[in-house]
Amino acid sequence: MRLKDIGEDALIKLIAKRSVVRHARLAKGIGDDACVMREVGGRALLATTDVLIEDTHFKRSYTPPRLLGRKALSISLSDIAAMGGEPLFFLVSIALPPETDKRFVDGLYDGLADAGRRWKCLLAGGNTARSRRGITVTTTVFGEAPAGEVVYRKGARAGDLVFVTGELGSSALGLWALGERGKSAGRGPYRKSVARHLDPEPRLRAGKALASAGLATSMMDLSDGLALDLKRLCIESGRAAVVNLGSLPVSDELLKFGEKHGRRRALLLALTGGEDYELLFTSPESSLKRLSGLSKRLSLPFTPIGRIVPGRGARRAVTVLDEKGSPAALAKEGFEHF
Amino acid sequence: MRLKDIGEDALIKLIAKRSVVRHARLAKGIGDDACVMREVGGRALLATTDVLIEDTHFKRSYTPPRLLGRKALSISLSDIAAMGGEPLFFLVSIALPPETDKRFVDGLYDGLADAGRRWKCLLAGGNTARSRRGITVTTTVFGEAPAGEVVYRKGARAGDLVFVTGELGSSALGLWALGERGKSAGRGPYRKSVARHLDPEPRLRAGKALASAGLATSMMDLSDGLALDLKRLCIESGRAAVVNLGSLPVSDELLKFGEKHGRRRALLLALTGGEDYELLFTSPESSLKRLSGLSKRLSLPFTPIGRIVPGRGARRAVTVLDEKGSPAALAKEGFEHF
Repeated sequence: MRLKDIGEDALIKLIAKRSVVRHARLAKGIGDDACVMREVGGRALLATTDVLIEDTHFKRSYTPPRLLGRKALSISLSDIAAMGGEPLFFLVSIALPPETDKRFVDGLYDGLADAGRRWKCLLAGGNTARSRRGITVTTTVFGEAPAGEVVYRKGARAGDLVFVTGELGSSALGLWALGERGKSAGRGPYRKSVARHLDPEPRLRAGKALASAGLATSMMDLSDGLALDLKRLCIESGRAAVVNLGSLPVSDELLKFGEKHGRRRALLLALTGGEDYELLFTSPESSLKRLSGLSKRLSLPFTPIGRIVPGRGARRAVTVLDEKGSPAALAKEGFEHF
Repeated sequence: MRLKDIGEDALIKLIAKRSVVRHARLAKGIGDDACVMREVGGRALLATTDVLIEDTHFKRSYTPPRLLGRKALSISLSDIAAMGGEPLFFLVSIALPPETDKRFVDGLYDGLADAGRRWKCLLAGGNTARSRRGITVTTTVFGEAPAGEVVYRKGARAGDLVFVTGELGSSALGLWALGERGKSAGRGPYRKSVARHLDPEPRLRAGKALASAGLATSMMDLSDGLALDLKRLCIESGRAAVVNLGSLPVSDELLKFGEKHGRRRALLLALTGGEDYELLFTSPESSLKRLSGLSKRLSLPFTPIGRIVPGRGARRAVTVLDEKGSPAALAKEGFEHF
């Protein structure tokens, strides 16, 4: 059944069915002009918004609607993680062509509900609209943290070590495999990377733990590639960074890709590939032992990949040293939308 | 100059230039993963999101970019007004084709800044993305109200009078004129209606005043047409409503349109035309005198258009009486997106 056969109020009902009914902090979710949330003194509210556009951020041909829903929420949750916050609620705006099959919409909202349940982030409202062509999903996530614990991009100090969580370049490798082989890539040699691209995991536990332990002097999530995102962190902090290409944590699949297509190409995916949704943070050397303990407790690697140095200005904010220790020239820093 | 020639970080700078620098409640606006706002105990945070999609909600041919920016914010502010709240901050997500002229983006953000200044609602963050075709602007607005003063759609009681602010059908008439004559309609006989369609005014002062005086038992804004929106209010309140077609407040331009194209067609625009962004509210008869005083103080008409009656269920939630007092049959209730 197509959307134009079921009507807008029925579509909103289909959405409301999956939304929160009762929550101590939410006075009103779906069904009014705005959602209404009770504020608490001494806390900081975090809000972030992201958009997934058909043919820019995903292709229908290889993206199951349920995973699209999960990803739409996860990428905004990743921003909450990067501030050291905990998620509370989310709003979702979707634009759909009238020919869209109702099953697609069901799948999409099932996926949003999956991620919402898993990360304790409740659907509190949103908006539906018709588009002439193409699907757009916009999520806005609200999170919270004790006012004194929020971690910003600003705050890195000269001498701090630069860390990333997890592995880099997997999502970019997955996207490459999907481009080469379509959805059958999900059963091929790069299937873990494909899964990583289609269904990224926001590092909420790590972000919260780093923030409440006061271990990160600055933090952000990696969405547009390490080189570009680290440059942004350096600019906000008024510092520069030196990164060792050989230190970047990469997956077995990326190593295998490197054996076939060249190690340099593989490392470039790790350095500039987008949508990792890992955390990038800085921490003084004196925190190494505590970081190592936290990493074990979370079963999530924290890898030191370089160091913050004095200096400011966008032009030379990030120096990448190749595996021989020489500065590497980069043709492309990362994913820019324009 | 086109967006693809200036790059994403330059685009974000262009946006940040127009955004808030310092505000007592905002710990961090643009430039981090999420915006950070200080919470205050005893207050309710309101959040709402809306989207304007090219060729669904507007056409480039007759929409000046500056007015598009103003409207994108105003329609979300209208939702804050409908809850009785005051605006605080907004996020904006835009998706643009890479060929978009930088002047268009400048105009759009100038318009967002206009409305932000006028209504004291500050740009606090957002997102930019490339679209393959067509412009999409998504706004998320945060507002606030004392926790006990929020007004919901739910709350209308049998016997309450139904009111609307301002005039109905002007936006729909303006849209019709733009469809007939393109942007030259802005100089034609329906120019006030065209202005109303392109640049609606959120009823923030009225919404706040009604809420803090406790004068509205229920309230919402009119975005999809009176008939459909009143039905929604009735369903939320578990009541029904009777509306007098002859009581609907209409503009001189709509009356003139009626003389030319038939009075019934004009009244149908007032009853079912979308995007009025007036407030619809209910109030007991005993409040009439205070409402009249408030209306004068605000220089904004509050017109009683009908009454809430017992009964529940979507099917017969709204009865429209024609000018002879007989129930009118409606082919179309209002604007549904699907």
